[in-house]
Amino acid sequence: MIADNMLGLVKNSSVIRAMFEEGNRLAKIHGAENVYDFSLGNPNVPAPAEVGTAIQEILDEEKSTYVHGYMSNAGYEDVRKTIAQSINQKFDTTFDATNIVMTVGAAGGLNVILKTLLNPGDEVITFAPFFGEYRGYTANYQGILVVVAPNTVDFQPNLTEFALKITKKTKAVIVNNPNNPTGVVYSKETVKKMAAILEEKQKEFGTDIYIVSDEPYRELVYDGVDVPYLTKYYKNTIVGYSYSKSLSLPGERIGYLVIPDEAADSEDIKAGASVATRILGFVNAPSLMQRVVAKCVDAKCDVEAYNRNRELLYNGLIDLGFECVKPQGAFYLFVKSPTEDEKVFCDIAKKYNVLIVPGSAFGCTGYVRIVYCVSYDTIKNSLPKFAEIAKELGVTK
Amino acid sequence: MIADNMLGLVKNSSVIRAMFEEGNRLAKIHGAENVYDFSLGNPNVPAPAEVGTAIQEILDEEKSTYVHGYMSNAGYEDVRKTIAQSINQKFDTTFDATNIVMTVGAAGGLNVILKTLLNPGDEVITFAPFFGEYRGYTANYQGILVVVAPNTVDFQPNLTEFALKITKKTKAVIVNNPNNPTGVVYSKETVKKMAAILEEKQKEFGTDIYIVSDEPYRELVYDGVDVPYLTKYYKNTIVGYSYSKSLSLPGERIGYLVIPDEAADSEDIKAGASVATRILGFVNAPSLMQRVVAKCVDAKCDVEAYNRNRELLYNGLIDLGFECVKPQGAFYLFVKSPTEDEKVFCDIAKKYNVLIVPGSAFGCTGYVRIVYCVSYDTIKNSLPKFAEIAKELGVTK
Repeated sequence: MIADNMLGLVKNSSVIRAMFEEGNRLAKIHGAENVYDFSLGNPNVPAPAEVGTAIQEILDEEKSTYVHGYMSNAGYEDVRKTIAQSINQKFDTTFDATNIVMTVGAAGGLNVILKTLLNPGDEVITFAPFFGEYRGYTANYQGILVVVAPNTVDFQPNLTEFALKITKKTKAVIVNNPNNPTGVVYSKETVKKMAAILEEKQKEFGTDIYIVSDEPYRELVYDGVDVPYLTKYYKNTIVGYSYSKSLSLPGERIGYLVIPDEAADSEDIKAGASVATRILGFVNAPSLMQRVVAKCVDAKCDVEAYNRNRELLYNGLIDLGFECVKPQGAFYLFVKSPTEDEKVFCDIAKKYNVLIVPGSAFGCTGYVRIVYCVSYDTIKNSLPKFAEIAKELGVTK
Repeated sequence: MIADNMLGLVKNSSVIRAMFEEGNRLAKIHGAENVYDFSLGNPNVPAPAEVGTAIQEILDEEKSTYVHGYMSNAGYEDVRKTIAQSINQKFDTTFDATNIVMTVGAAGGLNVILKTLLNPGDEVITFAPFFGEYRGYTANYQGILVVVAPNTVDFQPNLTEFALKITKKTKAVIVNNPNNPTGVVYSKETVKKMAAILEEKQKEFGTDIYIVSDEPYRELVYDGVDVPYLTKYYKNTIVGYSYSKSLSLPGERIGYLVIPDEAADSEDIKAGASVATRILGFVNAPSLMQRVVAKCVDAKCDVEAYNRNRELLYNGLIDLGFECVKPQGAFYLFVKSPTEDEKVFCDIAKKYNVLIVPGSAFGCTGYVRIVYCVSYDTIKNSLPKFAEIAKELGVTK
């Protein structure tokens, strides 16, 4: 028998991942071009050319035992220095190598920081709709995920309810900006209000509450919108970053944590994050990819391609009569379901080989997530399918 | 404040890792050539040429979004198939892709399988001396590590004590073959006896007890010794493998688990390992490296270089009067300390810039671990230092 909690997890395994497997299965039957898989955030835009060049240069110039060898658990010092400098330049901060811990993607980074911070029973707050994996990550360390109900007007966080849900046991707040699944970007105003609430509650309870800012979509923003860098607004902020989207390297599992000196118990957190990296079995972020991202620190994938996809899919769906807050970041649309139970919408879509994820997977029923990190043609060819789905559901403009 | 258990872990952080950092510090002061760092198993032998060629071919021939993209959490199906076939060819087994889960090295694999198997309070048995990280990996899932005392005669496992320590709560037995830190290879005889004990105890308690065979050193063997493939001797065996040593890629974090169909609840374990890979934040083993190892499935680093190192260091130390069981695998010597408290030996060695790890880090006091995955010259140049250390300790032939 496997572990009791794993039995449950296997049964209720990630809806998104199950759909990804389903998409692969359908593609084998109907041909990939006839399946419209909008389920998984697997970038369709290739890595920028700098990545290939960097790999080539590193293999040509550096010793195999260095490139592929062990380094400190926190990562190569020169890589961490380069990344710190790049952050400083972009956001006018003052980090150095000691503030950076290289991680196995943002998912690895979140696990490392939660392992470092949480005692059993500690509470972690997040805002619905939210990336469903936060539930598992928190449970890994016997933490309790406390969910703030969605604000479906504009999907900015519901700060009134947030303030009410902070307790003496609140250890961390996971913020995802730009947001998965809504694509909404939390404004500077929102961040300032959130920080003020936290400052007050810290004083009230005599505790330290850390914002863990999960930022894999930071570079994927449109309409010139600005994503505030949270360490500048709240000193107990730890940033979790990933190159999965900015460099289109999701399979490579490469990212980092930023642990500012201003954060309470900063030295313990840095040391703890390094030990957690080792003890959770990551050991270190993949070595070649560490060296690659340091060489590509200012490179970016073709964000404009995502923007074109966004416009095509958003306008296409709105024209058909669907409702959706237009997102300014990430590569997701969070569309209101025409049926009360959004799973009905998903099931009908699937009849047309259109795969979309129910909002319940993100703690927000009545909505569906549609990814647009697919090819432009997939979106274009899916629109007649969405028209048929709209017709079947009685959706009209 | 960070988590209570992390505070303790930070304080008592890995002795080996602390030495690795100390070695880097000393190298900066005295010059790398004057520091004899025998602390960390960081291969000095480069990756075989096939690795570089494979990377080149993959980047030339495959699409960026495929090579660097997400795949199933268990890994690329073709990679898993290639690996299964290679194992079948070498060990006359009958695995297929579904029996393989790609992991972030062996450390990642061990965490994945322990997360999958352990309920809080379950016991995990291992044999001293053992890789100290097993303690942390087990504690991650609220398991209890039960240590069988060392057999210092030949460092084969103490099977009499083993049988006594198996209880109704025993869920897993971690076996490390070839062994870190002794370099000893468990014989076919030993494995058969161990299997017989487990079969009997499973019947007695009506439980399933899994052997988790941690095999990063499988290919690093000398004198033509054979390392038995444990799935052939005991059906509830799960193998954890890593390419860290065989292909000299420790920083890349690439390995796999083998979950045989014959293992009890095999389907649940496979599904659980896949979910655990996701939920622990690994998500998947690094994608490019998955494709690389599939292309290098029969490649091997220059094992003969380690053999030359083994002979030089072993003979050098024996000639000086030190005592050691000659290892047939891995790249470690486990040397009897001339002082009762082996930390005294380590401290004296450090005065000569010779870094060695106390046996207490492996649950076996009175011994030290000396790695020989360093350059031949480092070993050659260290021998006069060891001579001085021997003299200071009164060691003579």
